[in-house]
Amino acid sequence: MASNNPAPPDSTRRSERSRRAIYDAAIALVVEIGYPKTTIEGIAARAGVGKQTIYRWWGSKAEVLLEAFLDLSEQAARTAAQEREEREDREGQEGRAGHESQGIPDTGDLAADLKFVLRATVDELHDPAFEAPSRALAAEGVVNEELGRRFVAKLLEPQLQLYVDRLRSAQEAGQVRPDIDPRIALELFVSPLAQRWLQYTGPITYTYTDTLVDYALNGLAPR
Amino acid sequence: MASNNPAPPDSTRRSERSRRAIYDAAIALVVEIGYPKTTIEGIAARAGVGKQTIYRWWGSKAEVLLEAFLDLSEQAARTAAQEREEREDREGQEGRAGHESQGIPDTGDLAADLKFVLRATVDELHDPAFEAPSRALAAEGVVNEELGRRFVAKLLEPQLQLYVDRLRSAQEAGQVRPDIDPRIALELFVSPLAQRWLQYTGPITYTYTDTLVDYALNGLAPR
Repeated sequence: MASNNPAPPDSTRRSERSRRAIYDAAIALVVEIGYPKTTIEGIAARAGVGKQTIYRWWGSKAEVLLEAFLDLSEQAARTAAQEREEREDREGQEGRAGHESQGIPDTGDLAADLKFVLRATVDELHDPAFEAPSRALAAEGVVNEELGRRFVAKLLEPQLQLYVDRLRSAQEAGQVRPDIDPRIALELFVSPLAQRWLQYTGPITYTYTDTLVDYALNGLAPR
Repeated sequence: MASNNPAPPDSTRRSERSRRAIYDAAIALVVEIGYPKTTIEGIAARAGVGKQTIYRWWGSKAEVLLEAFLDLSEQAARTAAQEREEREDREGQEGRAGHESQGIPDTGDLAADLKFVLRATVDELHDPAFEAPSRALAAEGVVNEELGRRFVAKLLEPQLQLYVDRLRSAQEAGQVRPDIDPRIALELFVSPLAQRWLQYTGPITYTYTDTLVDYALNGLAPR
């Protein structure tokens, strides 16, 4: 039986250590020298592994960086969620039942749920571990359409789909008009935050994202 | 009297030719080799002028590119406006009285005016002469905060202020709620378009920008 298992504990741990070293090296290089100059050779050298180790697991530097960044985003989301929980504990606020760091809660109160998730995004955008690499990759995506589209498809679009799901459930509950296209509607509060972050067009605060949600749900015209 | 005039016609024309050559060279270089590798020396060589000519008029490569890009944006806006007028003439539509290429019309119909200007922006974003340099500079702005903030202050914010003015006038006319902050409100329809362009998150069409205006003014919740 043991011979059928190609990854005994020691080897698994070694692989996991290599994988982590490769992720860290890839992120560090893209921050220090930018995406265009980052190479598989450079990542291998910095991670202290052979080039072939990287090629065994990934087909290109875009693949490595994509996975390294997915991993980093998950870490950043976990850290931000922990910090938020600690702050809420200190401030004596009640924890939000059923909250998962990557999902959108459905408490029945659409405005509150959207504000909660956007505040978590504000925390992530202010996380220094997340900021430099995500800026480096976002910048490359602006001028490199193929990379931009890959990162959106793998990283951004799955997150946006969570808003689509939440808005659909709000439509079923009669809180969003049935003729609204959720995929466009979510951009009314997600894109302003993205643009302020990408282009430094204004400060990023909880008050700001709360305001976006209120404006988007209630509209600018008098009711 | 003549001696008090330091720029007789011939010299003015020469200066104008040099200025144009420098703008063109700066834009071409930032598209071909990117912002970081573009230098004053490189711009001078390509424009066929001395380095000192550039330093006489501008303090840094950021200054040159900023002015070159402002000039390009004005050209792109003029071209897009002309093409739109020609298309409207062909389609037998009436010209919009009082429209200026860089301003926002105030016909009293806020939705129509916003849709009109956003359609013009869609045309600009699809203009190939405008796309490559504006992507190169936007990408650099994402990772270079100082440059990003300068371009926003000089280029983007003046355009956004036109929306602030139009929304204020709509508030006075009772078409926008008095408690709305126009500087945030404009982001509900401007930022989604910007993000789709910067990050390839979706197609950019007239139908899309029309929808953004309707959603922003009327809100997502039932009325």
